[in-house]
Amino acid sequence: MGNINFIHGGNIYEVKRRFKKEVIDFSANINPLGLTKAVKKELSKCYRLIPHYPDPEAKDLIRQIAEYWKVEEQNILIGNGSTELIYLIAHTFKPEKTLIPVPTFSEYERAVKSVRSKNVFLKLKEKDSFTLNITNSHRADISFISNPNNPTGRLLIKDQRLDILKSKLNVIDETFMDFLPDEKSHTLIWKAIKDKRIIVLRSFTKFFALPGLRIGYLIAHKDLIKRSKQVQPPWSVNSIAQSLAKILLNDKDYIERTRSFINKEREFLFKELSKIKALRPYPSLANFLLVKILDGRISSSILTGKLIQKGILIRDCSNFRGLNGRYFRVAVRTHKENIKLINALREVL
Amino acid sequence: MGNINFIHGGNIYEVKRRFKKEVIDFSANINPLGLTKAVKKELSKCYRLIPHYPDPEAKDLIRQIAEYWKVEEQNILIGNGSTELIYLIAHTFKPEKTLIPVPTFSEYERAVKSVRSKNVFLKLKEKDSFTLNITNSHRADISFISNPNNPTGRLLIKDQRLDILKSKLNVIDETFMDFLPDEKSHTLIWKAIKDKRIIVLRSFTKFFALPGLRIGYLIAHKDLIKRSKQVQPPWSVNSIAQSLAKILLNDKDYIERTRSFINKEREFLFKELSKIKALRPYPSLANFLLVKILDGRISSSILTGKLIQKGILIRDCSNFRGLNGRYFRVAVRTHKENIKLINALREVL
Repeated sequence: MGNINFIHGGNIYEVKRRFKKEVIDFSANINPLGLTKAVKKELSKCYRLIPHYPDPEAKDLIRQIAEYWKVEEQNILIGNGSTELIYLIAHTFKPEKTLIPVPTFSEYERAVKSVRSKNVFLKLKEKDSFTLNITNSHRADISFISNPNNPTGRLLIKDQRLDILKSKLNVIDETFMDFLPDEKSHTLIWKAIKDKRIIVLRSFTKFFALPGLRIGYLIAHKDLIKRSKQVQPPWSVNSIAQSLAKILLNDKDYIERTRSFINKEREFLFKELSKIKALRPYPSLANFLLVKILDGRISSSILTGKLIQKGILIRDCSNFRGLNGRYFRVAVRTHKENIKLINALREVL
Repeated sequence: MGNINFIHGGNIYEVKRRFKKEVIDFSANINPLGLTKAVKKELSKCYRLIPHYPDPEAKDLIRQIAEYWKVEEQNILIGNGSTELIYLIAHTFKPEKTLIPVPTFSEYERAVKSVRSKNVFLKLKEKDSFTLNITNSHRADISFISNPNNPTGRLLIKDQRLDILKSKLNVIDETFMDFLPDEKSHTLIWKAIKDKRIIVLRSFTKFFALPGLRIGYLIAHKDLIKRSKQVQPPWSVNSIAQSLAKILLNDKDYIERTRSFINKEREFLFKELSKIKALRPYPSLANFLLVKILDGRISSSILTGKLIQKGILIRDCSNFRGLNGRYFRVAVRTHKENIKLINALREVL
């Protein structure tokens, strides 16, 4: 069957190549409501943009984001997905020592490796519900904190408390923060613009269901933005992404529908997963759930393989540093799809 | 009027913001024939791709490129425009000393600056028709050679002669090579796959008129591809770019039409520019012409400003290292647009 432990979720192409299977993708944490109506409409006009270079400054989009968050334009930098920005931070600030609480998104580690940083991994323990306990001894040049954390779905920093930030530069990845109805009481955006120790990463990818487009941004003190800009390649964000992102933040209806939908379906999925004896899902605030397999005879890798045969792709978590072959992650999808997942799991386990 | 000396050509957004003017863009070197029919058709289906991550391996596209050039898939790396790949080379191979023949594309210099390389600039002299004369004393860790060179339009390496390559790693940027009907006798692609001293950069942007999409590739020995991959962020090439690029290389009709069109119009433009006493265009093989202003009373910056008022954007070359305020660059556009340019120049000069 080959190795099905992909580096990341969402690699439906590799599944298609290897298993000749179309799958429902529970392995990528993408809003199941799909593209907003306005995006679909706007997309049909986008071909006009292609024969011109993208705006290298992405000014129109930056103005919109600045208005949305009530920050200055000079506090914002747009990137080719938040992943480009993670690498940009590594290349700009060149840490010698990096602190990474794990399990978490693997690109922090990969990004700082390319600048030869020494990495210190702080293990979030299951018995502590994967919460972050950090002391002065954990001080590093940069720390990467995913908040809420991928793949656990927990807030590592709550209520904008900064006492947990010990490093010279603390990168708070708020890629999944939009799913929290009370995100405004947890985001560190308004701390970051004044405090040179903090960079906040945000994404359009997950919440607005456009991972194919590549667009994200970071919010930070203007001096950090200035330094990062000097290292960023020009035109890294394509025209279509810039154009479509502009019509997202004002779509209050889609934003509210998504939050309540995800909330309801996550509860449903959590409840149903809890009923399966061999499984233990962990409480999450995001649009995905980390699940432990309690039955020692079945590994996450075997489970993933069996589910692919049923047309379902989950995220085997055995390659997450700090986890092992007993964990997988599922995105919250539509009600119908979630039921399919539950039924498939029941059949296999 | 403000500074109109943009870092790059093609910034129609800044012109619009500052001058409230729609302009014909002669400052970016983009195929005036515009999108291919197949691209326009395919684009309407692209919205289906957006809610999924792009294929991180871009395998379908790589297979196509491999077939087109008759090289192995392992010799190809796709990037978010060739500009991303220039930065990737800098971050992967971290040169201490970089050789850059100038005038040339400014991003080579900017990219290696971010890894603190010492840069040596080799001036291409007007009296030598901007040709490259390189000796052993010019040996560096990396050299960047644009072939044909932007902004002069000359081949710096002809007939695949390698004696000119003195550095440990020689990056040959063939971004405009597609415009040469005899490109196959000049490209270093087939040398690069066997020779670890050579990396060839190619682009879809200029020839296929899609700078807004961001897609380019590099061809090199498989070991160099492997090392570069380790530093590249995942998903750096968006789904739409991957999907549309796949239908380009087989469009022989568009490719041939473009070559003969550009050839004819470049000759027309060269002839007409030569007739204007205050100007001297330089012979070029690409889809643009470098032009010198012989009248000492008018600078390229003043000329650019005056032409914007007439709805025409040219590329002021005063910020090209190795040139000065006497040079500008124009892209070859449609016949009608080229006539407009000539008429506007006559009126202003």
